[in-house]
Amino acid sequence: MTKAASLPFALAQINTRVGDIEANKKCILEFSQKAHERGARVVVFPEMTLSGYPIEDLAFRATFRRSAESAAQDMAQTLKDNGCGALFVVVGTVGTTHAESSDRPTNTLLVLHDGQILHTYDKQFLPNYGVFDEFRIFTPGHDTLTMDIDGYHLGFAICEDIWQDNGPAIQLAQSNLDVLVTINGSPFEENKDHVRTDLCIKRAGEVDAPVIYVNQVGGQDDLVFDGGSFVIDKSGNILARLTQFDEDLCLWTLHADGTSTADEIARDMDTDEEVYNACVLGLKDYMRKNGFKGVVLGLSGGIDSALVATMAADACGGENVWGISMPSMYSSDGSKDDAADLARNIGAHYEIQPIEPLFMSFQNQLKLDGIAAENLQARIRGVIVMAYSNSRGLLALATGNKSELACGYSTIYGDAVGGYAPIKDLLKTRVWQLSRWRNEQALKHGEVPPIPENSIVKPPSAELRPGQKDSDSLPEYDLLDSVLEAYIEKAHGRADLLEDGFDEKTVDTVMRLVDRAEWKRRQYPLGPKVTALAFGRDRRLPITNAFRE
Amino acid sequence: MTKAASLPFALAQINTRVGDIEANKKCILEFSQKAHERGARVVVFPEMTLSGYPIEDLAFRATFRRSAESAAQDMAQTLKDNGCGALFVVVGTVGTTHAESSDRPTNTLLVLHDGQILHTYDKQFLPNYGVFDEFRIFTPGHDTLTMDIDGYHLGFAICEDIWQDNGPAIQLAQSNLDVLVTINGSPFEENKDHVRTDLCIKRAGEVDAPVIYVNQVGGQDDLVFDGGSFVIDKSGNILARLTQFDEDLCLWTLHADGTSTADEIARDMDTDEEVYNACVLGLKDYMRKNGFKGVVLGLSGGIDSALVATMAADACGGENVWGISMPSMYSSDGSKDDAADLARNIGAHYEIQPIEPLFMSFQNQLKLDGIAAENLQARIRGVIVMAYSNSRGLLALATGNKSELACGYSTIYGDAVGGYAPIKDLLKTRVWQLSRWRNEQALKHGEVPPIPENSIVKPPSAELRPGQKDSDSLPEYDLLDSVLEAYIEKAHGRADLLEDGFDEKTVDTVMRLVDRAEWKRRQYPLGPKVTALAFGRDRRLPITNAFRE
Repeated sequence: MTKAASLPFALAQINTRVGDIEANKKCILEFSQKAHERGARVVVFPEMTLSGYPIEDLAFRATFRRSAESAAQDMAQTLKDNGCGALFVVVGTVGTTHAESSDRPTNTLLVLHDGQILHTYDKQFLPNYGVFDEFRIFTPGHDTLTMDIDGYHLGFAICEDIWQDNGPAIQLAQSNLDVLVTINGSPFEENKDHVRTDLCIKRAGEVDAPVIYVNQVGGQDDLVFDGGSFVIDKSGNILARLTQFDEDLCLWTLHADGTSTADEIARDMDTDEEVYNACVLGLKDYMRKNGFKGVVLGLSGGIDSALVATMAADACGGENVWGISMPSMYSSDGSKDDAADLARNIGAHYEIQPIEPLFMSFQNQLKLDGIAAENLQARIRGVIVMAYSNSRGLLALATGNKSELACGYSTIYGDAVGGYAPIKDLLKTRVWQLSRWRNEQALKHGEVPPIPENSIVKPPSAELRPGQKDSDSLPEYDLLDSVLEAYIEKAHGRADLLEDGFDEKTVDTVMRLVDRAEWKRRQYPLGPKVTALAFGRDRRLPITNAFRE
Repeated sequence: MTKAASLPFALAQINTRVGDIEANKKCILEFSQKAHERGARVVVFPEMTLSGYPIEDLAFRATFRRSAESAAQDMAQTLKDNGCGALFVVVGTVGTTHAESSDRPTNTLLVLHDGQILHTYDKQFLPNYGVFDEFRIFTPGHDTLTMDIDGYHLGFAICEDIWQDNGPAIQLAQSNLDVLVTINGSPFEENKDHVRTDLCIKRAGEVDAPVIYVNQVGGQDDLVFDGGSFVIDKSGNILARLTQFDEDLCLWTLHADGTSTADEIARDMDTDEEVYNACVLGLKDYMRKNGFKGVVLGLSGGIDSALVATMAADACGGENVWGISMPSMYSSDGSKDDAADLARNIGAHYEIQPIEPLFMSFQNQLKLDGIAAENLQARIRGVIVMAYSNSRGLLALATGNKSELACGYSTIYGDAVGGYAPIKDLLKTRVWQLSRWRNEQALKHGEVPPIPENSIVKPPSAELRPGQKDSDSLPEYDLLDSVLEAYIEKAHGRADLLEDGFDEKTVDTVMRLVDRAEWKRRQYPLGPKVTALAFGRDRRLPITNAFRE
């Protein structure tokens, strides 16, 4: 068959919800309709579009699998009924178990066309590292899929298939593909977009054809999918690129002579903008997908709660943010003013609940001192935050950052209270950096910078005893964060850390704190994953663990 | 080589600690010495003896792997130096990575002899379901191991290897084995001992020789290993059996004519005794391995806290248990008396901290009503329990049972507060059953039954508002627990539950509660796994999940 003059693809970067098969189907139908109206012949959706991703142990529910299966059949028919029968619709879903001995389904790509499921392809490589548990819940496929549309030869792959060197790209290297279509559910990590494009350049070289990379967008529990879908060729030319952190549809047309045209090449975001957006989208989708309209958090006047409140205002509007100032006898006047200024800047509700009378009531009975008395203050605040959460139906936000969390420098059932922790994967130095970045953005747009300068520049303190500073208990944050980055992100052991030039005392202090904080971290609320190795799903140490390097 | 008249094996069922390579080594040396003194030629230890099990992501730490490697070498030499060089010592450990492309090590069996590591065998089948994540952290072996000792032909396998039908037993079916030696880290589940023996009968048939099954014993986070090691033949004759829930050493001698003799065939425990022991050992080892000497918990006068306190007294002695009565304006006099009686019966410290004055202080500021006011009472109690924990270094125990936890019928940061939850995997009906069982045991031994009869017979109530009963919010526990068992343990979907004969209203209520409680359950403290499907590691649903059957 000779090639048509051109083959127009639509890249449909949508935001699905795990388990919401009906809503996901509706969204696929809408984007297919738009793609059709804009002249697309093929529309490509992300991995597991219909089921949502990642589905975790929902994979084992037969009812869920049956629902997804019948929805896929329905959808093919509805597309035809809606006049989109000529469109080839590439979607992901949970597939049928094909191994007799397995109760695990497949991670499957469907090509819908003319009212039918025309082709299916099952993911061959199932990631089981970091945040991924796919080997636990899926059974792998063993066959490649290629198909012809208007004389163009298409190959297919699903996400991890292209991250392994012996995947479909090598299997299809001799197939004379015109394009390799990949559907993905690739969670955001700082600077991961460059890793993805480098990888696709390699695969494009192997198949000697451009690679279409469609990624999902949106927050799902502690994962944030950044979208940023693209088309790239083996020389590294970006032929199309969609926006990050939002739904998007882009038309990319491949011509018979191998050239192509696109109606969008979105700009590349810098790291601060990416990370800030990841945190806001993670929170926004956690709220929306779990039915929360507003949030409550304690405003201490410190930088952490200021940044979290600002992110929350960006996610759901300042009018849906309740900021509670809960001063103790150790809170400075400056802190109280900073909290009030912040709330005013972002348009949040602001209420003051002094904890001193409550603290006195407890102390009247308990007579605590030392750390126990410090924790008591934090826990009284936790009770107040949860009281607002319960009585007004607000999502309580924990304001802890990754440096604190890593070192256990927080009070469990106190400041760690909450349903979601927007900055749990940001080191303290990054909290300062993003706060400055967010204020600069405001200035650029002629708005009032949300975060009071004083919250940024003052020395961090928990204000749980007179004159307390974080640096009494922890190394200075510049140093601490450097050690944490080497120990956690780079997995440097004790010997490596000493070779990195850190002094022995600091190394031993930080390693001891981090290794001992495991239990507290497991009880910490969900928050977005931003760096390569967040705490939580992608780092699993035993709690009872006597090993010391 | 002709067979010696007999080959004496020692089964060494020991309690290791993850990461504590030195202590584990010491224990292996001691038990090897005892085995040698009792005339053993071969001593068999559990899976991953030297490293502890399960090691989770410690597998990725090069320093940990190197420590284990050098400890194994040392140990072989020390055995020889101690006069045990002639003994064949079968131990498990973390092995060296053999796949070039992998940073994952092996799960390995070593045979130590005459100062050397004589043989190694790498586990071929890596479980990745339920509580197991081995495919994530290990790389599989591909070779079988057999060896001759005194003319007897031995084959080897590690745990999951015998749970798969195409494992070493089939691979060695034609090898004329005299015995198949298996080393195991098989977590306790109700009635699992019969599953294990049935499995080993099958494998014994395949290799046409007895199977030695050595299992580890002890608590590790939420797993409890029950020991219960044994030797069995293809006809199902138990040739030796070690005790459950304790370290043990047993000599089993195989004779040249195929007969054998053993110095122990421990009795079979019934289910109540097994489950009670699992809960106590889980708590005891969690305390010991994490450095806690005592516990604190709220005593409400109800059955849950009564059973937990009794288990705690059995785990660490009543003198190390702090029971805090925290009556509110809604607590009945009966409840207060029951709490005091319980504390006296088990010899616990007993303190009374009324929460009414604290509640009034909060209400003076917050003016809450409804659920928010109920939760406030529970959270004040949580603060008090944690104050005792912090000021006295006590492990706080959460007293919630599986029925409550499944349905979200508890207050997060309130009664769910604690570092460990001893009955989190017991349904409420089982809580009553074990309480009666424990009282009967006391009577049998001429002791005072610890749990007041009134705590067992009165209708359960959270006592957070006047006249409140659990049955206001939940189906009656007999019914609730039947539905939970079908829904959770048997994974019955909605249609199956209706077919089971449950009415539609109950089914929908329970499913809705269970599906919505996911977030709260993730924040719940660790507790022992008792049933096939506990909440926690072996059930992983997305939190943002819109799927409803």
